Amino acid sequence: MSNISRRKLLEMIGAAGGSAASYQVATALGLVAAPGALVKANVTRLRESRRRVVILGAGVAGLTAAYELDRAGYECIVLEASHRPGGRVLTLRGGDIVDEVGHRQVCNFDRDPDLYFNAGAARIPADHVALLQYCRELQVPLEVFVNDNRNALVHDDRMFDGKPVRAREFITDARGFMSELLAKSVLTEQLSQPFDALDAERLLGFVRAYGDLDSNNFYRGSRRAGYRNGGFITQGQLKEPFDFSELLNSDFWRFQMHWAEGNDQAATMMQPVGGMDAIIDGFMRRIGRLVTLHAIVRRVHLRDQGVDVTYAVNGVEQRIHADFCINSIPTHLTAGLDHNFPRDYVDALRVVERGKLFKIGLQARERFWEAERIYGGISWTNQDITQIWYPPTRFHSRKGILLGAYTFGDAGGEKFANMTPEARIDLAIAQGERLHPGYGKFIENGVSVPWHRMNHMLGCSARWRPEDRHVHYTRLQQPAGAHYMVGDQISHHPGWQEGAIRSAHFALADIDRRVQAQIAQLSARR
Amino acid sequence: MSNISRRKLLEMIGAAGGSAASYQVATALGLVAAPGALVKANVTRLRESRRRVVILGAGVAGLTAAYELDRAGYECIVLEASHRPGGRVLTLRGGDIVDEVGHRQVCNFDRDPDLYFNAGAARIPADHVALLQYCRELQVPLEVFVNDNRNALVHDDRMFDGKPVRAREFITDARGFMSELLAKSVLTEQLSQPFDALDAERLLGFVRAYGDLDSNNFYRGSRRAGYRNGGFITQGQLKEPFDFSELLNSDFWRFQMHWAEGNDQAATMMQPVGGMDAIIDGFMRRIGRLVTLHAIVRRVHLRDQGVDVTYAVNGVEQRIHADFCINSIPTHLTAGLDHNFPRDYVDALRVVERGKLFKIGLQARERFWEAERIYGGISWTNQDITQIWYPPTRFHSRKGILLGAYTFGDAGGEKFANMTPEARIDLAIAQGERLHPGYGKFIENGVSVPWHRMNHMLGCSARWRPEDRHVHYTRLQQPAGAHYMVGDQISHHPGWQEGAIRSAHFALADIDRRVQAQIAQLSARR
Repeated sequence: MSNISRRKLLEMIGAAGGSAASYQVATALGLVAAPGALVKANVTRLRESRRRVVILGAGVAGLTAAYELDRAGYECIVLEASHRPGGRVLTLRGGDIVDEVGHRQVCNFDRDPDLYFNAGAARIPADHVALLQYCRELQVPLEVFVNDNRNALVHDDRMFDGKPVRAREFITDARGFMSELLAKSVLTEQLSQPFDALDAERLLGFVRAYGDLDSNNFYRGSRRAGYRNGGFITQGQLKEPFDFSELLNSDFWRFQMHWAEGNDQAATMMQPVGGMDAIIDGFMRRIGRLVTLHAIVRRVHLRDQGVDVTYAVNGVEQRIHADFCINSIPTHLTAGLDHNFPRDYVDALRVVERGKLFKIGLQARERFWEAERIYGGISWTNQDITQIWYPPTRFHSRKGILLGAYTFGDAGGEKFANMTPEARIDLAIAQGERLHPGYGKFIENGVSVPWHRMNHMLGCSARWRPEDRHVHYTRLQQPAGAHYMVGDQISHHPGWQEGAIRSAHFALADIDRRVQAQIAQLSARR
Repeated sequence: MSNISRRKLLEMIGAAGGSAASYQVATALGLVAAPGALVKANVTRLRESRRRVVILGAGVAGLTAAYELDRAGYECIVLEASHRPGGRVLTLRGGDIVDEVGHRQVCNFDRDPDLYFNAGAARIPADHVALLQYCRELQVPLEVFVNDNRNALVHDDRMFDGKPVRAREFITDARGFMSELLAKSVLTEQLSQPFDALDAERLLGFVRAYGDLDSNNFYRGSRRAGYRNGGFITQGQLKEPFDFSELLNSDFWRFQMHWAEGNDQAATMMQPVGGMDAIIDGFMRRIGRLVTLHAIVRRVHLRDQGVDVTYAVNGVEQRIHADFCINSIPTHLTAGLDHNFPRDYVDALRVVERGKLFKIGLQARERFWEAERIYGGISWTNQDITQIWYPPTRFHSRKGILLGAYTFGDAGGEKFANMTPEARIDLAIAQGERLHPGYGKFIENGVSVPWHRMNHMLGCSARWRPEDRHVHYTRLQQPAGAHYMVGDQISHHPGWQEGAIRSAHFALADIDRRVQAQIAQLSARR
């Protein structure tokens, strides 16, 4: 059987310049080399020798470090400024406090274990193997989380006069249109001569299958987009395709349409049963005894040997000396401590910017979206709220917690943050009405989290400018004396628990190396 | 802002003939008219009058009919030939019997509620609203089922020398390639002149986003396909794109690649917690008292008024008269009964062909696939087994039940069916090894279901030739006297519970109409 050469194809159609064809794979297929190989911290167990490590912050990075060091025989002290461990792993339930600067909220959800809101970390991809390994070890039950629901809605004010369509309609029609264009232009017009019959036929077959074109290479609707009516007792009638120019009027295709295919977002996604903080609970069951809450770190001073840390609990200052300090406090807050870090380290701390992500959780008295055939998943809108998430569990139960806004952009985040908690809910409801008429009458209460106003954090995931990665990121990955910065902020996965864990593992490996070298040196002297 | 007209575009590129553009939507956007509006049976409640209905078969159609008629005050008798209710809703657990003609198997799974195998119906789409309504009413808890897992494998002997790749790799690279072709050929070459800058830019933007092309419109790999390495502590390195011609060598793109986007397969898919037969259990809790098992129907005779049915339980014949008969026995078996159906009805019964689908469930001593980052979902192969399904629940538990084969084609179905149960398992393991080296050493036991050899069914879902739909299907939708054919076989959704339910609703509506007309006539006479 003859093959279609990509290069040949591209040459045919007169493409200038290079091509992906030059990247053709001649080597192994990557399954083995994939980034999902089991990742574990391997801290050598201490025997006679003692080492003390002070860990700043009881988020995922800090808890990982404490858990691993504790079981390797290190003495660990975890200082957490907040009233709770977990950092940006924050699951809110009825009665919980949202410690926002200036707007202390109490979550008014019904006291029901199914009514919770993951206000921070909310999903786990299958490739985040270190986190998944901890879920296994800490016996955190997992279930499927739904990113991509083809019955969820796409709303854009500029498309169809602001009427929402189903994701399956948008995606299928856009694909059909693309495929029709390609089939007609590339294949029938240009490729018919230079290609032999088999090649052209196969490529045409591919394109036809891809867009669900008819035998004449026209896109006339597809079952993938859903039926207009019928399909059960009577024959299904295909929905008529949308006008592609109307679809292009929206912004959905810019990244939202492809969101659920990203390396960190593609199915199968997961979540812990009952709330993301089941992971924190799992760590705390093992090492909660090591964690001091309400401990505000004030001073971190590097010494010739080790680090001095001064902190206050209820205003009472305490000072401890440790062999190492593992610090997950946000870089911009660390830079503001009383410290004696070297200049290049401080420069690096200061260069990292922070996201202003905003989330709002809404308690609905009725899971009305399930009557609209939406079971889990995410609707998109070009309004400030950006997304609505529907709970992927407890289908057909009475009430449910919606994510009523998940605002990525700084402008939207600031807009919400600058409102009162009540006004935020009102705005989220008003915008939700555009997707679900009657939305507001189902909402009983809500709770909002503007991450850049959350106490002890004042910012969301780190934003590294690409140009800062080389010098500053590399600097912060290295210790300053016995002081190690960790957290998702010191990773290529800011905003993800996996980034936090890997950064902790990275620091632990270096500490282990140094400690073992010290021990070997001492033992050689004896 | 100016728009891109599809027709204009197609004209530009010299497409001959009509186009989907002529189908442009000028009317409402279909959300309201969507086929998911709540569907309910509305059988008028009987008062003084009595009616008896005999229902043949205790599958989903029969149970639906009995449930609805019973609560409307009808007297119902459900006759089921098998030792169990449910029909092709068959969930196998340790100790269960597989009533295959010639090979009676006992399922050897461990006795553990999590170790079950849905050998028949196995998933519920969100658009199957009648079934979902029964799940709600019967309090059947649902959870997410995963069709589309981008970490699952694609295997084809003709591609990459039979080495499997991840679905995310295949799909992303194929899409990137398509988009690159389109961007270069359609946009830069042909559309640059006739379109104004904004139009061309926007369409180009769409295509670029669609395929994740670089700024020069080349596809050079994408995060959607996953990283080759890095991404957490170090920068992620993109996997190099495959050679598209190699991808075209496989059959995956013919329909498998698009499988999980079909109207009945796209996310969010669901399943009952603990096994599909939770639905049967739900019905049986309400109306189990009406069901006689081991009741073999032998004779169905239409009378001027009503129907006579003769059946045998343990060889003892019984005869009952009923006002109506609702029959879900497979058409080809119904045709073989002692009956007095009219000729056109018999012709219609005989025309329906049956699938030979085959499924095998394998108990694995360890959920090895989760170490390969596969959590639920389906891998595809061009071997006989066609698919491997991974359980979408109880992640990280010890054991799991794999679907080790799901053979759609008749040839594959017959091949497996003609083997002994032991040999089927051996073949499924041998073929599974091609996707997961070492597969066999994890498999403890298995159970297989060749549907065309299952007692009292002798066939899987009905296969209607399109040309038979007009005359024969329409005939079977209508009663013969007081006898109604039902089941997924009398629907446009054969193989789906929703088809069975809708067919029952369709028959019930007609029975209700006739009964109410009789009552009105009687009351008019008085």
